[in-house]
Amino acid sequence: MRGVLMHAPGDFRVAERERPTVVEPTDAVIKVTATCVCGSDLWPYRGAQPFDAPSPIGHEYVGVVEEVGDQVTTVRPGQFVVGAFCASDNTCENCRAGYQTACVHRRWMDEMGAQAQYLRVPLADGTLVATPGTPDEDLVPSLLTASDVLATGWFAAEAAHAGPGKTVAVVGDGAVGLMGVLAARQLGAERIIAMSRHENRQKLALEFGATDIVTERGDTGVAGVKELTGGLGAHSVIEAVGTQESMLQAIRSTRPGGHIGYVGVSHDVTLDGQELFFSHAHLHGGPAPARRFLPHLIDLIWNRQINPGKVFDLQLPLEEAAEAYRAMDERRAIKVLLRP
Amino acid sequence: MRGVLMHAPGDFRVAERERPTVVEPTDAVIKVTATCVCGSDLWPYRGAQPFDAPSPIGHEYVGVVEEVGDQVTTVRPGQFVVGAFCASDNTCENCRAGYQTACVHRRWMDEMGAQAQYLRVPLADGTLVATPGTPDEDLVPSLLTASDVLATGWFAAEAAHAGPGKTVAVVGDGAVGLMGVLAARQLGAERIIAMSRHENRQKLALEFGATDIVTERGDTGVAGVKELTGGLGAHSVIEAVGTQESMLQAIRSTRPGGHIGYVGVSHDVTLDGQELFFSHAHLHGGPAPARRFLPHLIDLIWNRQINPGKVFDLQLPLEEAAEAYRAMDERRAIKVLLRP
Repeated sequence: MRGVLMHAPGDFRVAERERPTVVEPTDAVIKVTATCVCGSDLWPYRGAQPFDAPSPIGHEYVGVVEEVGDQVTTVRPGQFVVGAFCASDNTCENCRAGYQTACVHRRWMDEMGAQAQYLRVPLADGTLVATPGTPDEDLVPSLLTASDVLATGWFAAEAAHAGPGKTVAVVGDGAVGLMGVLAARQLGAERIIAMSRHENRQKLALEFGATDIVTERGDTGVAGVKELTGGLGAHSVIEAVGTQESMLQAIRSTRPGGHIGYVGVSHDVTLDGQELFFSHAHLHGGPAPARRFLPHLIDLIWNRQINPGKVFDLQLPLEEAAEAYRAMDERRAIKVLLRP
Repeated sequence: MRGVLMHAPGDFRVAERERPTVVEPTDAVIKVTATCVCGSDLWPYRGAQPFDAPSPIGHEYVGVVEEVGDQVTTVRPGQFVVGAFCASDNTCENCRAGYQTACVHRRWMDEMGAQAQYLRVPLADGTLVATPGTPDEDLVPSLLTASDVLATGWFAAEAAHAGPGKTVAVVGDGAVGLMGVLAARQLGAERIIAMSRHENRQKLALEFGATDIVTERGDTGVAGVKELTGGLGAHSVIEAVGTQESMLQAIRSTRPGGHIGYVGVSHDVTLDGQELFFSHAHLHGGPAPARRFLPHLIDLIWNRQINPGKVFDLQLPLEEAAEAYRAMDERRAIKVLLRP
């Protein structure tokens, strides 16, 4: 089968890979309907994360079940499924607490390589959720977002306590930040400040529910948020970048007692204890437990209450994955969907 | 009047200071019944916090109102009062959100110097709470703890979401940590793990409600907590030290999705973003909004439901403040009460 391989930083290519089969009795193999490139895939693409040998990549996927292991009971061949970007048993104490990305049997799906024609999904019962039927074609992109980017934005919005009466600021106008805007709107936030310098992303943010735009970054951006919030800062701040600047921007944009939901994968971020201490902010984040939110998100999409699939501004055949990476790396595309 | 002056690191002495008067119409002046030395007072004592000229110190106090400004309406001369270690108007948006230590008119009481015979309290209406009457002598030490150390432990326990069904670990066996144990017990925690190497502090922790003791520190201490919690870590962790080691110990002792309440004043603490990210912990803390908790804490003490005053294992006349500092610095005393 065909699938993406990381050859070297900047050189991610489609190659022949072995078609996966059921290995463990808890596995499923799915025929991938759609997959995509994640902002976090750009870290290894840019060489910020070393890898030794060519290896598969990709962790966002929807598809049709081909085959299941003997112990799989909740999905069956022929069903359309959405899976979380992290495989989990969904029964251990961490999973039951809602932290499937900290499952004691956790497996990152990148290891399986979802940017491919077929995908092995470990712990299928705990990882996959079947849709009520075969989705209309136009729902596929939205369902795909639930695999990671929408779930991550949603987790960030919940971690930031977005809700009625709240002013939410969103740091980062990438796909996750935009999904954070959508989630904050769904959760009933009163005011949503999107921090974005790019006109097309601002436009999408407004479509997803943003009420205000702040175009500045860093401390000038912080001042912009303060100006909109009576000098106090936002109640809720979503951090969706993962750099030192974005984390500081998030902390400084939050009012005392406010909540920060941070989901940008932290690279070279160090937080000063004293600044954090006196900020009085609540801080919560990490890799989003997408599985926790999947049933609810599928439901919202199935009933056409949200249309997060709009975040894909480029769709390409899987064979053109190299161009997909280039387009995202150069910020020509917000998020690229790949069709195997 | 007599009051403590910081002369130089290691040289805090009692000297003649001007008796305070009402300056602003929102001030009160109180005759101090009892004051004490805080763990945070040891930072300047040890030279970890520079000061230029001799200056007053002390922020924990109970006493009797002597005089009030024209605009003070909630306390009157003759009343016994407990005050928060940070003066606040208790009406601004931050105060109403429960963050009086982030009041837009905040004044740190150290500036006024509570280790003295008389004390000027700015924003008296927002800072002081009168007791139902003149307290019995044996209640005075407990009421004094509500001014800071008990309120701080309580805030940490609430920030850590201590409560029914929860296992709480407490990092730090100083007065704040011990108050955190007491608070966690009051909030209904199922299991309370006190981390302490000192026998007298262990004993007090058990008296205040600890169910388990872990004597190791650092990663060995973390392993001890994990061993008691099925390998997962505590649901709730109270951090009451403020060093790099104690913060890491707190983060690593917390299970995914768990809550850390940190109230040790952070000195030279830097947190690695990636470790925090993958910890999945909730982090909240800062200078405790003591004023938020004062009415409830006074009530618990007045009705003799709690006896936090036991944390004072040494009582001295104000004139012997130098010895009080030495005793705490050398860890001969957990906390020293001073009688002006």
